[in-house]
Amino acid sequence: MRATFLYGAGDVRVETIADPAVQQPTDAIVRVVRACVCGTDLHPYRSAPASAHGRQMGHEFLGTVERTGTDVAGVRAGDLVVASFSYQDNTCEFCRAGVQTACVHPQSGFFGGAQAELVRVPLADGTLVKLPVDADSELLPSLLTLADVYGTGYHAAKRANVGAGDTVAVIGDGAVGLLAVLSARQLGAERIILMGRHRARTDLGREYGATDVVAERGEEGIAEVRDRTGGGALKVLEAVGHRPAYDQAVGIVRPGGVISRVGVPQYEEAPIGFASLFARNITLNGGPAPVRAYIDRLLPAVLDGTVNPGKVFDRTVSLDEVPDAYRGMDDRAVLKALIAF
Amino acid sequence: MRATFLYGAGDVRVETIADPAVQQPTDAIVRVVRACVCGTDLHPYRSAPASAHGRQMGHEFLGTVERTGTDVAGVRAGDLVVASFSYQDNTCEFCRAGVQTACVHPQSGFFGGAQAELVRVPLADGTLVKLPVDADSELLPSLLTLADVYGTGYHAAKRANVGAGDTVAVIGDGAVGLLAVLSARQLGAERIILMGRHRARTDLGREYGATDVVAERGEEGIAEVRDRTGGGALKVLEAVGHRPAYDQAVGIVRPGGVISRVGVPQYEEAPIGFASLFARNITLNGGPAPVRAYIDRLLPAVLDGTVNPGKVFDRTVSLDEVPDAYRGMDDRAVLKALIAF
Repeated sequence: MRATFLYGAGDVRVETIADPAVQQPTDAIVRVVRACVCGTDLHPYRSAPASAHGRQMGHEFLGTVERTGTDVAGVRAGDLVVASFSYQDNTCEFCRAGVQTACVHPQSGFFGGAQAELVRVPLADGTLVKLPVDADSELLPSLLTLADVYGTGYHAAKRANVGAGDTVAVIGDGAVGLLAVLSARQLGAERIILMGRHRARTDLGREYGATDVVAERGEEGIAEVRDRTGGGALKVLEAVGHRPAYDQAVGIVRPGGVISRVGVPQYEEAPIGFASLFARNITLNGGPAPVRAYIDRLLPAVLDGTVNPGKVFDRTVSLDEVPDAYRGMDDRAVLKALIAF
Repeated sequence: MRATFLYGAGDVRVETIADPAVQQPTDAIVRVVRACVCGTDLHPYRSAPASAHGRQMGHEFLGTVERTGTDVAGVRAGDLVVASFSYQDNTCEFCRAGVQTACVHPQSGFFGGAQAELVRVPLADGTLVKLPVDADSELLPSLLTLADVYGTGYHAAKRANVGAGDTVAVIGDGAVGLLAVLSARQLGAERIILMGRHRARTDLGREYGATDVVAERGEEGIAEVRDRTGGGALKVLEAVGHRPAYDQAVGIVRPGGVISRVGVPQYEEAPIGFASLFARNITLNGGPAPVRAYIDRLLPAVLDGTVNPGKVFDRTVSLDEVPDAYRGMDDRAVLKALIAF
């Protein structure tokens, strides 16, 4: 099969490797129908050291079940399925508590080879969700967002406990930030301030429910949001992961409020002491989204067309064009690239 | 009147100064009946640079209203009252939301001169709570804990959302840690692991509801708690404020869990990235307790003797002996010193 590898910063190649095989009775093999490139993929694309051994890329996909191990009961060959970006048993203590990304099953983990023709899915019953559409449905882009970005944006809003009438600020106009806007709107937020400066993206953000767009960053952006909200937003969704985004979140959060992070932090230490969080009783939470837990919740509105999260895809490429897709997203010419097989 | 001043590390003096006067129509003057020394007072006691100008000390007191400004309606001369360690209008947006320590009233603030015979109380109606006992009640020590340490321990438990059947770890066997144990028990926690190594204190912790005591610190303490809980406690109450206590909290918190801090952080930067909080979806919250909000909630069980938070006082001194009280607490010979007038 053909699969995508990263050999170092800026060096993406599509190569031919052996087809994956069922290794455990709980595995399934899925033939990918749609995959995509994630903002998270850009971190190693920008910084990974050159290596003779490429690493396989991609963690978002939907496709058709090709075959299943003997213990797989929930899906069967021919089913169209979407996978969460993590694989888990969906039955352990943490899965039951809605923290699927902390599954204790020894085979649990995170996908890393989904930009490929075939994917081995460990713990298929805890990971795959059957989709009630055909493989040529026009809903595929929106359904693919359930694998990560929609569930991740939704996680940001859920962890911030967004509800009716809330004022919410979303930092970042990438796919996750935009779908955090959509999610906040779904959960009843009344005012949604999107911090981003790419017009095409913030326009989509407005379509998804943003009432305000603040293009300024840093101290200027903080002052603008504080001014518009009379002292900050009670719920801040941080969908970037870089340190300046965290600092911005601290600057715009209202006393007693919450900073919910879903952008994977590219820093380890940051201010959390008296001046930054403590004195104002700020809550900091978030983490890798348990998207498996959210698929059932989010699926109906995708199926009936109430929401269209698939609009975050603004370019479609073939597998061989994936290196271009990385380049385009890195240049910010592309918001999010869909890979059609 | 006589009042306590700190002139630098280790240098506490009791001096005579002018009596305070009503400055605003919302002020009250309270004659102190009981005050005390707080663990927080030990931070400047250990580190404040020497200064020619002493700073007045103390933020916990109960006493008798001596006189009131013309706008004070809730209390009057002769009333026995307890004050929250912060003063606030108790009507602004943040007070209504239960974040009284973020009150926006221009006169709001934190007491700093309660180890004295008289205290001027700004915003008296939002700050003082009338106590339905006499000034010689044996309940005074317990009632005094409502000014800070009991409400602060309770805040730790509330912010961690402690409820029936929970496993809770409390870091710190100071008065706040012990009353966090008491509060966790009140809120229904089933298992309470107290991390502390002062036997007299941890014994009181057991009396307050601790089911386990872990004396080890650092990596050893983390390993012990993780071992006893099968991977960590879902709710960690951090009642120290020093960086090692934070690191301990990160080490013992269970995936999806919460670290609730009420020890005033003596650090600004600390790890909050992928490895420490993000990967496991840990929530970090807490801050200065809105103790004013908790007094009404906590008062009944103090009055009827269900709880006895006043047991944290293991020494009683006169105002002139306050320098000894600081010394005793700094040496850890004294848990918490009560000042009787």
